[in-house]
Amino acid sequence: MSSVSKPGPASGSSALELAMRSAIAVSEGVRGLTSPNPPVGCMIVDARGKPVGFGGTSPPGQAHAEVVALRMAGTAARGGTAFVTLEPCAHHGRTPPCADALLEAGIAQVYYAVDDPFPAAAGGAQRLRDAGVTVHSGLLAEEVRTGPLRAWLHYARTGRPHVTWKFASTVDGRISAEDGTSRWISSPESRAEVHALRLKVDAVIVGTGTVLADDPQLTTRPPANEPAMRQPLRVVVGERDIPVGARVLDDAAETVHLRTRDPHQVLATLAERGVVDVLLEGGSRLAGAFWESGLIDRALVYMAPMLLGAGTPVLDGIGVGTIGDALPLAFESATMIGPDVRISAVPARD
Amino acid sequence: MSSVSKPGPASGSSALELAMRSAIAVSEGVRGLTSPNPPVGCMIVDARGKPVGFGGTSPPGQAHAEVVALRMAGTAARGGTAFVTLEPCAHHGRTPPCADALLEAGIAQVYYAVDDPFPAAAGGAQRLRDAGVTVHSGLLAEEVRTGPLRAWLHYARTGRPHVTWKFASTVDGRISAEDGTSRWISSPESRAEVHALRLKVDAVIVGTGTVLADDPQLTTRPPANEPAMRQPLRVVVGERDIPVGARVLDDAAETVHLRTRDPHQVLATLAERGVVDVLLEGGSRLAGAFWESGLIDRALVYMAPMLLGAGTPVLDGIGVGTIGDALPLAFESATMIGPDVRISAVPARD
Repeated sequence: MSSVSKPGPASGSSALELAMRSAIAVSEGVRGLTSPNPPVGCMIVDARGKPVGFGGTSPPGQAHAEVVALRMAGTAARGGTAFVTLEPCAHHGRTPPCADALLEAGIAQVYYAVDDPFPAAAGGAQRLRDAGVTVHSGLLAEEVRTGPLRAWLHYARTGRPHVTWKFASTVDGRISAEDGTSRWISSPESRAEVHALRLKVDAVIVGTGTVLADDPQLTTRPPANEPAMRQPLRVVVGERDIPVGARVLDDAAETVHLRTRDPHQVLATLAERGVVDVLLEGGSRLAGAFWESGLIDRALVYMAPMLLGAGTPVLDGIGVGTIGDALPLAFESATMIGPDVRISAVPARD
Repeated sequence: MSSVSKPGPASGSSALELAMRSAIAVSEGVRGLTSPNPPVGCMIVDARGKPVGFGGTSPPGQAHAEVVALRMAGTAARGGTAFVTLEPCAHHGRTPPCADALLEAGIAQVYYAVDDPFPAAAGGAQRLRDAGVTVHSGLLAEEVRTGPLRAWLHYARTGRPHVTWKFASTVDGRISAEDGTSRWISSPESRAEVHALRLKVDAVIVGTGTVLADDPQLTTRPPANEPAMRQPLRVVVGERDIPVGARVLDDAAETVHLRTRDPHQVLATLAERGVVDVLLEGGSRLAGAFWESGLIDRALVYMAPMLLGAGTPVLDGIGVGTIGDALPLAFESATMIGPDVRISAVPARD
């Protein structure tokens, strides 16, 4: 454990990367529970390289990942190494600085993936170095940046929640048939994945039109009838009323109705509530408005193996009349999910 | 080389599979040159396992794959093993039976992938066994069935050409913008792949609407300005006239205009001409007619990383009004091709 191996996706064989991958897994596990704080993961190994503690960020106001992991490690942390997905913080927020906690525990070496982008919190690496700790940055940084910290890093950079536009469509780009029916375009496997995704975001947005047409509940339903640990905030956008008795108004989760059609206003309101990560679930016109405002950060398509030849298109009205004006994207991945294909794409900003 | 290893995709390590993969590669190389005969590949290894000859099916009336490979091997074939993608034929067609050629050359063992489905040609394996040759069938059968022999096996079973519906679309399922522009939705990488595909099929079909709107040449243009070895037959379907001066009427390749809108009639006419493998390239309405007739065997989507929000849909008019009536498909693969995603799907027949 003497030198940093080359970080990079799927190289994954060294002990360093294995330890950081554990930290990443822990951080994935606390996604959805930490906003507006980042979902950080930490792994502690003792001086001989044996794992002795791990932890993820606790809900706001409670212990950060490093502190949780150090508590588990106890005195075994002395002379050991900490693997953290984000640079340990150096500031007094609602909790004391993590850099100080690492020093007090006698940690000798720190590997972290991504620098803290907030000036107020940054400086943790320097404080550790000044105290004689060996600090390495950048280990598996890309995996963390595009993985568990993706939404939070976007929020830290822009002040806006990260918006994932998710939809299920047919191969010919329809989200429902001519008579409005759409259940179930996507497979049980894809729906299970979407439920798992809702568990990891802070809010789910739909338009009033989708509420009127489909009456979705917008909750996450874990398998085996267990209650979900938490539910995302349900956000209904649009000027029309939500019908009494709509499932989105049940007491399974909190719901807000934003009587506006301005995506900027929607995201500003959500940011004030500490919402960092958002899933935009429908419909075509609301998605069009978000695209026109430049506020979509990722498109997540669940393509079902079927053809309709008619029906509601994926996207409505972004004012593009000719091919040269098409909105440019970049694909991140295309993966089979059960019988479906899941495609991830991001706006190609140049 | 004493026992058959388990055939299966991507297991690919044994000497047997390596030899059959060479035969598959040779057969891919002659696709597009053999119809109505199957594009077969053959690899001969001598008694000590050394490759001594290979060959693919020659154009109709000329030598079959086994004969080409045996000629290359010469006397080294004696006591050797032949790897063939299709069961060696036992009938006198325009050429003598391949089974006899293998016997005359003194081949001791034969591995073939797929049984010959034509009763007239089948029986080759039996004839070889009767003469004392050890014969194994099924080696990499699935790779051959879904690969180089896919179209021909369909043609042998149904009497109809195999139809691949190919289109380039945006993420939101548009094949052109509102003003009709579509060049170039797909990337240079995808276009190069389509040109390579045209080289391997017998015919390319478009509707008169596509000729009028886009004036495509429908030829295969190899890179580096080299002339293509061959061109697929260009087939224009529809009752409208093709304008004088249309590029599809140039002398780069043969063109037929079928003044019908009945896909069954189109394929019957093409089958009479010995066409086995067809690429259906446009547009939405012609594709709809082929789907309604149940005559599409594969959908090949080149999805470009862009959004239009309006424009021509992928598919027009298959008479589906409700989600339960959607045409069911099964995805075969989803693969990144340059900046695009290529998706292959087949009708889900149950």
